[in-house]
Amino acid sequence: MKLATLPGPTPDGRLVAVEGDRCRPLACGTMLAWLDGGDGTLGAAEPFDIRDVLAPLPRSWQFLDGSSYVNHVELVRRARGAEMPESFWHDPLMYQGLSVFTPPTASIPSKPGWGTDLEAEVAVVTGPVPRGASPAEAAKAIRLICLLNDISLRGLIPAELAKGFGFVHGKPASALSPLALTPDELPGWDGARLHGTLRVDLNGAPFGRAEAGVDMIFDFPHLITHAAATRDLPAGTVIGSGTVSNRDADGGPGRPVAEGGRGYNCIAEQRVVETILHGDAATPFLVPGDRVKIDMQGPDDASLFGIIEQEVIAA
Amino acid sequence: MKLATLPGPTPDGRLVAVEGDRCRPLACGTMLAWLDGGDGTLGAAEPFDIRDVLAPLPRSWQFLDGSSYVNHVELVRRARGAEMPESFWHDPLMYQGLSVFTPPTASIPSKPGWGTDLEAEVAVVTGPVPRGASPAEAAKAIRLICLLNDISLRGLIPAELAKGFGFVHGKPASALSPLALTPDELPGWDGARLHGTLRVDLNGAPFGRAEAGVDMIFDFPHLITHAAATRDLPAGTVIGSGTVSNRDADGGPGRPVAEGGRGYNCIAEQRVVETILHGDAATPFLVPGDRVKIDMQGPDDASLFGIIEQEVIAA
Repeated sequence: MKLATLPGPTPDGRLVAVEGDRCRPLACGTMLAWLDGGDGTLGAAEPFDIRDVLAPLPRSWQFLDGSSYVNHVELVRRARGAEMPESFWHDPLMYQGLSVFTPPTASIPSKPGWGTDLEAEVAVVTGPVPRGASPAEAAKAIRLICLLNDISLRGLIPAELAKGFGFVHGKPASALSPLALTPDELPGWDGARLHGTLRVDLNGAPFGRAEAGVDMIFDFPHLITHAAATRDLPAGTVIGSGTVSNRDADGGPGRPVAEGGRGYNCIAEQRVVETILHGDAATPFLVPGDRVKIDMQGPDDASLFGIIEQEVIAA
Repeated sequence: MKLATLPGPTPDGRLVAVEGDRCRPLACGTMLAWLDGGDGTLGAAEPFDIRDVLAPLPRSWQFLDGSSYVNHVELVRRARGAEMPESFWHDPLMYQGLSVFTPPTASIPSKPGWGTDLEAEVAVVTGPVPRGASPAEAAKAIRLICLLNDISLRGLIPAELAKGFGFVHGKPASALSPLALTPDELPGWDGARLHGTLRVDLNGAPFGRAEAGVDMIFDFPHLITHAAATRDLPAGTVIGSGTVSNRDADGGPGRPVAEGGRGYNCIAEQRVVETILHGDAATPFLVPGDRVKIDMQGPDDASLFGIIEQEVIAA
């Protein structure tokens, strides 16, 4: 199924199964009710316009975001001359994020000094996962896959992380793609990773073309077992992959798309590479008027999840 | 109103207004529906047994826990010989926590090495708060007050915080008190802080008797404005005070209740004080069989929020 959420009687909206330009409502009403085991019987078909959607899961009980593409972490550290602990290749970085998600076309509020950035990610939505679940149990609990834009306020993050308790100000609400797909809808899903090119455009120009199935050191079952080490995960838990990031073929820091590289999925990474290569970051963070587009296409070039398309506005 | 949630058709339970040993269901069904503006019409009275309750808010969209009693933070730092940044007196520490809450009598799973600890806190539940809200707007948004036991796994926290992204493993689900009260039910609520003695017992003996209204450097409106600096807060946001902690009258690190002091609201703090005074921590963290009790009484010695009473079990 391809699931979307349309505006409804509550902020949780109205869950529908999308079939081309038509959709059919699920009897249980909302994505959360469906994940809790609610009635998935499909109602009568009605017209569907993808521009009307909310996030498929507008709010949930938990969002845990990993940093699976360790290349990204290593680059960021290298730029500031810090060694990356070897343990980062074995023990996932993960933070507890805000589990309220904006529609795919929500504007991104930004203030001078916030250093507003995108982070293009893959995310999964789980059913219930008991504490201490095995990777096999975790894999079975993956109900849906979607794309996610983890908005990051780089100007606020260093001071916030220095306090030692993780992100609050630095990570406002993320956006989700219009559609969340069950695994059977995705030939590129191998049960643990999503294979496909993540297409990120900035102001209409290609910015990132990384392969989501490559260089993902911790796959989703691994991230889920990490998340469930000391807690039960409720149905509706969203697990993010972290910014998708590929190593360059020669092990170097990669090149922009315009120079034949795979580009970057957040501005911070491009700035890091600029700093490594030229001693200075040239690409500015997002400012009002900037437009971000995140997409992944299937073999027929059609968008798999619909397009995240957001414009930055003054907060 | 004194609100409680009884088991119901979904994990969100069935919201009731408690009147002595009777209760009346709210028409909207759940705490989240009520906070979203749902119908608060009361139905017919039915018998109420406080031993049956879930958390008043079994799961929500967001839990942000502050560290308002800066004395606690300063003590912990002093024990390890670290200076506390002066900014900690002006800029609240806050982390994004797990917004799933256990019933007040849920057992606390623990493994050897986890260093399982309680943290007795006051918490508020908010209505919707827009980004950038003022302290006055924040104060008006406070809908309910309750007590909270923020379970902390001290054995896992140092390594987790060293990774830089805050808590996941170290902070499993917190427990809430049986009842959440509207401000008008609490003479000790001054609009920003709750005044009253937080009564924490460990294995039947008094462990903490701190004054919740004293030494709370950041009041709840301040914590809420901090939380809302870069994001809208959805109705149902839970804001924790952090471990309640009082300075000693002479500015010293305090004394156990048995020695005439106000005691401690987490074992870590008692261990810190033991380390400061004697060079070594004597009190062990919780082990299976240990019993924790958290309560606050009104002027008539009756429990205001019902009692959090949890036993530690082997995970």
